[in-house]
Amino acid sequence: MAVYTEVSDEDLEAFVAQYPLGAVRSCKGIAEGVENTNYLLVTEQGPHILTLYEKRVRPEDLPFFLRLMEHLSDKGLACPLPVHASDGAALRQLCGRPAVIVTFLEGLWPRRVLPWHCAAVGEALARLHLAGADFPMIRPNALSVVGWGELYQKCRESADGVQSGLKALLDAELAKLVASWPTGLPTGVIHADLFPDNVFFRGESLSGLIDFYFACTDFFAYDLAICLNAWCFEANDSFNATKARQLFAGYRRVRPLSAEELAAMPLLARGAALRFLLTRLYDWVNRPSGAFVTPKNPLEYLRKLRFHQSVRGIGDYCLDGPGGVGEA
Amino acid sequence: MAVYTEVSDEDLEAFVAQYPLGAVRSCKGIAEGVENTNYLLVTEQGPHILTLYEKRVRPEDLPFFLRLMEHLSDKGLACPLPVHASDGAALRQLCGRPAVIVTFLEGLWPRRVLPWHCAAVGEALARLHLAGADFPMIRPNALSVVGWGELYQKCRESADGVQSGLKALLDAELAKLVASWPTGLPTGVIHADLFPDNVFFRGESLSGLIDFYFACTDFFAYDLAICLNAWCFEANDSFNATKARQLFAGYRRVRPLSAEELAAMPLLARGAALRFLLTRLYDWVNRPSGAFVTPKNPLEYLRKLRFHQSVRGIGDYCLDGPGGVGEA
Repeated sequence: MAVYTEVSDEDLEAFVAQYPLGAVRSCKGIAEGVENTNYLLVTEQGPHILTLYEKRVRPEDLPFFLRLMEHLSDKGLACPLPVHASDGAALRQLCGRPAVIVTFLEGLWPRRVLPWHCAAVGEALARLHLAGADFPMIRPNALSVVGWGELYQKCRESADGVQSGLKALLDAELAKLVASWPTGLPTGVIHADLFPDNVFFRGESLSGLIDFYFACTDFFAYDLAICLNAWCFEANDSFNATKARQLFAGYRRVRPLSAEELAAMPLLARGAALRFLLTRLYDWVNRPSGAFVTPKNPLEYLRKLRFHQSVRGIGDYCLDGPGGVGEA
Repeated sequence: MAVYTEVSDEDLEAFVAQYPLGAVRSCKGIAEGVENTNYLLVTEQGPHILTLYEKRVRPEDLPFFLRLMEHLSDKGLACPLPVHASDGAALRQLCGRPAVIVTFLEGLWPRRVLPWHCAAVGEALARLHLAGADFPMIRPNALSVVGWGELYQKCRESADGVQSGLKALLDAELAKLVASWPTGLPTGVIHADLFPDNVFFRGESLSGLIDFYFACTDFFAYDLAICLNAWCFEANDSFNATKARQLFAGYRRVRPLSAEELAAMPLLARGAALRFLLTRLYDWVNRPSGAFVTPKNPLEYLRKLRFHQSVRGIGDYCLDGPGGVGEA
């Protein structure tokens, strides 16, 4: 929930005048998203989203994100589509920040995740992976094993202050993942942040995916591991096997998983848990006083990491029940 | 900027189904307003605002606010209009909180106030005062002299921690205002919180007023004094006489001010400054750690209070220039 940059009405009207959208009717800051500033902009052409990219997004990555949305949309995937200004450019400057206007996606993100949501997300994730197959740009994942090590160095000394023993646990986990991170798994464009607030539903159908600002080139199965963590644990951090079965079954209806991908899943899930644990830990120990945004609790992902550490193989995810591996 | 209450999609859909609005297409928390939770709700009938009233609003006051919006709207004033559910009720419960859906008002609030905005606000404020003349309900102003004293008692001991000497200054100011607060000025429905973010413009026209949740029965001239503080000072706390002239001239084109109202203005402006100084001081010293909302700085209103303390009469507001008292 964040509006980091306030846009004056004059600046806004001059900015929007560069697009074929007609006059501005309304513009309200949205209390969602923690990385960028988002406004719901209503013009004579209807609702759109105006995004100002804040300091965490590297401007040189923006063409990858914007062209990816165009590519996926061309392939029939429902996602926001950047609007081009009258001069053809989609990426502009507003209040000294890179800014784009994208189309508005209808739907609500699920505040309470039900198993059928997981099936739909699995399917959509696999469709995204297939639709990205011929996307020509490459963006290495800045938040994979090497990036975790760099990030961890910036908050390692504060770890025990968050929870006693956390530093030793993270030292060991990072060493384990560096030593055994898989190689050679099927690779392509992944979303890398497909949490419930990035997936919209209308009634009982998934209506679209948003927030491609962590998208990158990495293992497809790692993207699924991120979803396993984000969608298949309850608020009390217990693992919901029914949701996991639905997620995997939905995915495999569209894109089969190889034996190597399944075998790597416990390790990928540990890596996915460590990635969000580290970014949340970093934000937690570096939170400014008086910040607008309350950082997310890193310990939620510590508990998920510990769950995956206890898993001996894909069988421990109970994927063999109805809708699980056995059925796919 | 605040979403205090997260509404689940099931709860939202069940709630909206009670209204003649069709299905929900989208619902996004708005990062504006500090008192209540506001969502921009898009249904098949277009955009609306869904408001959940948080703890600061007394439920027994809500009928006053809602009927006032209906009354003013009937009189042609552009303001949000509560939508009645199919059973006729406008005020319902959602997530354990009183909740209403109101119509969506187009426009942008001015991030940078220009003199012509002040003229338009003055006119709109006077129109509101006239339109409320036959509104039958009464709500005494809970945040007038008596209320200030009660509020001050809850934060008096923390005042010197915010700025040295503040306690003695506030003790003296409150005593002065209690002793000399005017009586018998023209009274009726006032907005009591008409800050720039509650006034929308489209192009060069004022398109409407929002946020009637401090509206009450009090002196009309006090409402104008609140606007004088909210609209006629620069970010560096200097007084902008051109804006003040425009505000007063706009007001007086619609509703003349009596000699008594003008004579009381310096004292009313001190009271209006003290009112916001005290609520901000209270919020400042009582801010929870990890709050979503950064409290507004109380010292802005201390500087405004000091300005008004130095004023000897209405003439010191320089209202006699173009667009000022001399012209009205």
